[in-house]
Amino acid sequence: MNGQKKIRDYGVIIGRMEPGPRNSITDVPGVLVGHATLSGGDIHTGVTAVLPHAGNLYEDKVPAACEVFNGYGKSTGLMQIEEVGTIETPIVLTNTLSVGCAASALVEYMLERNPEICRTLPTVNPVVCECNDGYLSDIRGLHIKREHVFQAIEAAAEEFEEGAVGAGTGMSCYHLKGGVGTASRRVGLGEGFTLGALALTNFGALADLMVAGIPAGQIISDVQKSDELEKGSVILIIATDMPLSSRQLKRIARRASLGLARTGAHMGHGSGDIAVAFSTANRVPQTARADFHTITILNEEKIDTVFRAVIECVEEAVLNSMVCAAPTTGRDGHFRRSLSEYMDLILDGSRH
Amino acid sequence: MNGQKKIRDYGVIIGRMEPGPRNSITDVPGVLVGHATLSGGDIHTGVTAVLPHAGNLYEDKVPAACEVFNGYGKSTGLMQIEEVGTIETPIVLTNTLSVGCAASALVEYMLERNPEICRTLPTVNPVVCECNDGYLSDIRGLHIKREHVFQAIEAAAEEFEEGAVGAGTGMSCYHLKGGVGTASRRVGLGEGFTLGALALTNFGALADLMVAGIPAGQIISDVQKSDELEKGSVILIIATDMPLSSRQLKRIARRASLGLARTGAHMGHGSGDIAVAFSTANRVPQTARADFHTITILNEEKIDTVFRAVIECVEEAVLNSMVCAAPTTGRDGHFRRSLSEYMDLILDGSRH
Amino acid sequence: MNGQKKIRDYGVIIGRMEPGPRNSITDVPGVLVGHATLSGGDIHTGVTAVLPHAGNLYEDKVPAACEVFNGYGKSTGLMQIEEVGTIETPIVLTNTLSVGCAASALVEYMLERNPEICRTLPTVNPVVCECNDGYLSDIRGLHIKREHVFQAIEAAAEEFEEGAVGAGTGMSCYHLKGGVGTASRRVGLGEGFTLGALALTNFGALADLMVAGIPAGQIISDVQKSDELEKGSVILIIATDMPLSSRQLKRIARRASLGLARTGAHMGHGSGDIAVAFSTANRVPQTARADFHTITILNEEKIDTVFRAVIECVEEAVLNSMVCAAPTTGRDGHFRRSLSEYMDLILDGSRH
Amino acid sequence: MNGQKKIRDYGVIIGRMEPGPRNSITDVPGVLVGHATLSGGDIHTGVTAVLPHAGNLYEDKVPAACEVFNGYGKSTGLMQIEEVGTIETPIVLTNTLSVGCAASALVEYMLERNPEICRTLPTVNPVVCECNDGYLSDIRGLHIKREHVFQAIEAAAEEFEEGAVGAGTGMSCYHLKGGVGTASRRVGLGEGFTLGALALTNFGALADLMVAGIPAGQIISDVQKSDELEKGSVILIIATDMPLSSRQLKRIARRASLGLARTGAHMGHGSGDIAVAFSTANRVPQTARADFHTITILNEEKIDTVFRAVIECVEEAVLNSMVCAAPTTGRDGHFRRSLSEYMDLILDGSRH
Repeated sequence: MNGQKKIRDYGVIIGRMEPGPRNSITDVPGVLVGHATLSGGDIHTGVTAVLPHAGNLYEDKVPAACEVFNGYGKSTGLMQIEEVGTIETPIVLTNTLSVGCAASALVEYMLERNPEICRTLPTVNPVVCECNDGYLSDIRGLHIKREHVFQAIEAAAEEFEEGAVGAGTGMSCYHLKGGVGTASRRVGLGEGFTLGALALTNFGALADLMVAGIPAGQIISDVQKSDELEKGSVILIIATDMPLSSRQLKRIARRASLGLARTGAHMGHGSGDIAVAFSTANRVPQTARADFHTITILNEEKIDTVFRAVIECVEEAVLNSMVCAAPTTGRDGHFRRSLSEYMDLILDGSRH
Repeated sequence: MNGQKKIRDYGVIIGRMEPGPRNSITDVPGVLVGHATLSGGDIHTGVTAVLPHAGNLYEDKVPAACEVFNGYGKSTGLMQIEEVGTIETPIVLTNTLSVGCAASALVEYMLERNPEICRTLPTVNPVVCECNDGYLSDIRGLHIKREHVFQAIEAAAEEFEEGAVGAGTGMSCYHLKGGVGTASRRVGLGEGFTLGALALTNFGALADLMVAGIPAGQIISDVQKSDELEKGSVILIIATDMPLSSRQLKRIARRASLGLARTGAHMGHGSGDIAVAFSTANRVPQTARADFHTITILNEEKIDTVFRAVIECVEEAVLNSMVCAAPTTGRDGHFRRSLSEYMDLILDGSRH
Repeated sequence: MNGQKKIRDYGVIIGRMEPGPRNSITDVPGVLVGHATLSGGDIHTGVTAVLPHAGNLYEDKVPAACEVFNGYGKSTGLMQIEEVGTIETPIVLTNTLSVGCAASALVEYMLERNPEICRTLPTVNPVVCECNDGYLSDIRGLHIKREHVFQAIEAAAEEFEEGAVGAGTGMSCYHLKGGVGTASRRVGLGEGFTLGALALTNFGALADLMVAGIPAGQIISDVQKSDELEKGSVILIIATDMPLSSRQLKRIARRASLGLARTGAHMGHGSGDIAVAFSTANRVPQTARADFHTITILNEEKIDTVFRAVIECVEEAVLNSMVCAAPTTGRDGHFRRSLSEYMDLILDGSRH
Repeated sequence: MNGQKKIRDYGVIIGRMEPGPRNSITDVPGVLVGHATLSGGDIHTGVTAVLPHAGNLYEDKVPAACEVFNGYGKSTGLMQIEEVGTIETPIVLTNTLSVGCAASALVEYMLERNPEICRTLPTVNPVVCECNDGYLSDIRGLHIKREHVFQAIEAAAEEFEEGAVGAGTGMSCYHLKGGVGTASRRVGLGEGFTLGALALTNFGALADLMVAGIPAGQIISDVQKSDELEKGSVILIIATDMPLSSRQLKRIARRASLGLARTGAHMGHGSGDIAVAFSTANRVPQTARADFHTITILNEEKIDTVFRAVIECVEEAVLNSMVCAAPTTGRDGHFRRSLSEYMDLILDGSRH
């Protein structure tokens, strides 16, 4: 979509469902993604914002759910998603030590646009998720500021870059360069819907990497030694325009780990592995007055095809985050190669 | 302990276990509490810090657990407590919109003292809990700054004030003045231990208030009309020096709601009702090298007396937060009376 | 409703909402309750069945949720309620060691009425909850048989007995006689709805018992010594005809513990304290073909009044289970007095 | 170990850790497995019992945890494992509709051996897990009886059969024959430990099957059409002799899904996908008198190698359950081929 070579462009097909036109989370109508990137010297970090829709999210919330696969992480805002099943701000991704700053900036952003928050209306729940980009970036420098959060939100668009950009700028995945990746699937229920995933990838040990069942990590290990241990985290954002309840979204979020597993993930002790899922149908208004309202939800007996879509999207989004990411030299000369550099070797190896 | 008149000083005895010498969470050896208070004009807010011990918490963590009774709240750091069962920073309490700022300040505080965080050692998990003091305070003004967090931590001591102070400065409870309160109980297992609770109270509807079974809210309602709805939250910090596993601490945290209920709580839709419990025994070092270690834990068959202690402490801490709080006039002339003003009426009423 | 003297008949009013016409869970239209009672000699046990509606529950499920306050119990069927948010069989209550037998009988009951279960249609999830009546009854004798389950289901009616009957026959509560109790509240949202609770009570230590804030247990302890420890469990069934999602039902179920707490409960280590809630609106058909369907749910901002209703119902249902229960002599001469025997003393005591 | 050809005997190596001597859950010292098999005509079902140790489990419990990946299942006993973190009976596996019968039989088995259950000692928590073997077996006939449960327990030994035996007799996996499979791994922490998994497999759609990254299901689909949908469940029992807390066991249980995912699992809507994990170290006595006791647990920073072991064991145990299972003709002529029949084709296909 943006001229970048994605995993599918290498002839690697994940699963059997059809992607949307951009093979992106923004194939879900209304969903926008924006980045702010800080890159240079010892600083390789940034912010990525995912907007469930372009309107005022506080006034017009979306049904949502989250699932924590391993909770060694500092993401914030998940507790309220779990309790009331809605998201009411953009979802902001950044580095681990900048969550507080980003949450504060997101609160300011929302206060500016909603003068009645904490006056006649309730509080606002900022959703900020993170991975630790400290291997490539001077994370202790706390370089993310208020303006980067605003900038990422304001840059949100249907077209966005993947790889070493935004929150993905300094991330590592399977000891190669990680970053931001996305994928989507068409789901043929009703009049047809789209489900998309965006992954912020920062996990895994090289030898474990699998690309569509090929033991890519072992092939690469033959030429690039790595004795690092698995470390790090992954954030998975799932979006769909299918009408779903927050309970159904939770079941969908839970399947994201299966897509992860197919790339070789072990969900290490020190990881913050989290999925956040939302539906853009069934908006929840801030100030509804009626005692009751009607919502449309999926017949639960038909949900398996949505489970399949999320598993395929997550597996592909992780791989996209890697092949789209350029090799990066960061803090103290730390270096990560790109999966794209090894794709010929991997595909070649799998043919013999 | 600090010259303040607590609920027990009115002759109201909660439960049947003995309090510690201060009837305070700081009866648990090593636990310290400090406040930073901003009070004047439209600003009535602050920070309260609870330190599980006076040493370096990142190097020397404490076993911990949390329980979310209702998750409409913005507290941060709970996910990692749930996953790995430890706390590694001071616990900071403040207002809802300042959580991001406080988390960021707490990260800075920890980075300053631990140069290897995010270098050779893992990330750090700031624990910040909150209630919404927007009725009495200009919460949208974001008046809490980095220095108030540092100030509260550095003020931490065994003796501390209760009532309208620190994070409790602008809180409301049962439509009266809320704030910070504490209580403790002696638990006679083994050589004897102490369990203490600290409550940040900001919940409840006046008519529901019960004081040791007396329908205090209804007695007060006869002289002070209130048609406000239940709103708000409560944070409960539970400390003990008894050796407990994080799983045992979770079971203990879960009982805090029973103490709340005895004061009349309904855990309303819009509340962030949370308990965080820790034990100062069984420290978990950051850099242990052994593959295995031994810990001492409670024989689970004896845990009922600990459950009783936490229920009594929570009930009494809530009442202490109210009777110790002076009446307060805040933002836009909003006003909260103090429970202490009604204690004669209540005790008188219960006698007839 | 059935000539029994309930707590309200003693002039004790719990809360401020209005009960339904029978002050019973069967005030919720369609809900039926039936008992099978085994009483005599060393055997004091039985079965109670709660039917969400009189039709075929497998074909026409009800939205449901459950909450486990303390999980030292053997109830079965809760996992699937949690996952898919529906109930598809009568809810059967019995003694702890008879859960397997009752589950098996309930499966047989459902198979007889649904020839396509496990043929063209899925499996069926029997819901059986329990408390341990071993103090008064020879529970090791496994006296509950298949026919008692059928008998309880077939006896289900709008009018049913409370106290020492059905599953409540051998139960103890606060070291007095426990059993089955019920209460209901009118909830004035929309065109008006009813919420009801049924409690199977088998928990508590005498000295902790509170009756509407009066320290009844301490009053009784002056005349009846007890040094028994808290033991046992409680099962709370919540029904309503209000249209609610299973997520909303879960939030409602969670409040049941607050009603319990007001009677003096501590949720001891060895207790299986469980709430199961269902709504008779929004039926979920077994064989819906449409991809999507619309449901009506409560505006979440209005849920507080439902929380209040469940708290009041549970508190009152527990007290009804006790005052309606006749004193019972059981296994090995074990004896439980009835709360009804002390009501004069309690009410008298509270007036002085 | 038992003359059966396991997946490793085909030259397929899963992961990189070493199996134990039998490559079986019974490589964990003390763990025993027994079967009772009913096979013939329309009846293809049975019981499998896993004994954490050969002694009296009620008197001498093992630390345990469970994780529900998808809860559309009827397993019983998990709630108490979750609450108190112990197992106190053999773990019994059988078909879905026989859980009640098996639970009742297991209670009888325990009562016979422990005369003080429900007298001077607490109740007992039977753990029974299940999958639906209704495709191959007349599950509605309720053919499992009390004696089959006793028989499986009494047959428990270190050597046991895999494939279409015991509870696995009638199971289907990826539309081929499923059953019971096992695998183990050596974990080199401390003086060295073993972790083993036993899988009861009854899930998956043929086209999704992956064998060590090879798209086996697609290769088979070319010669054997299947348009069935994913259905069914999987039970995973994890055992180790490593000293672990129940919280650590829960984290380990949670990784089982990653091993499943590598075989192609989607965790369908209608599945009861459950892992139960226990450690044979740190026994928990029924009647300990001391207030506190010391336990040895793993340094949590070293847990990643245990995560890897469970992922590898689960992937391999699932494949073993399939290759060890003979093709089966069951109820109404329903037929399942064996994965073993296709192994040449699969391995051949992967080489070109």
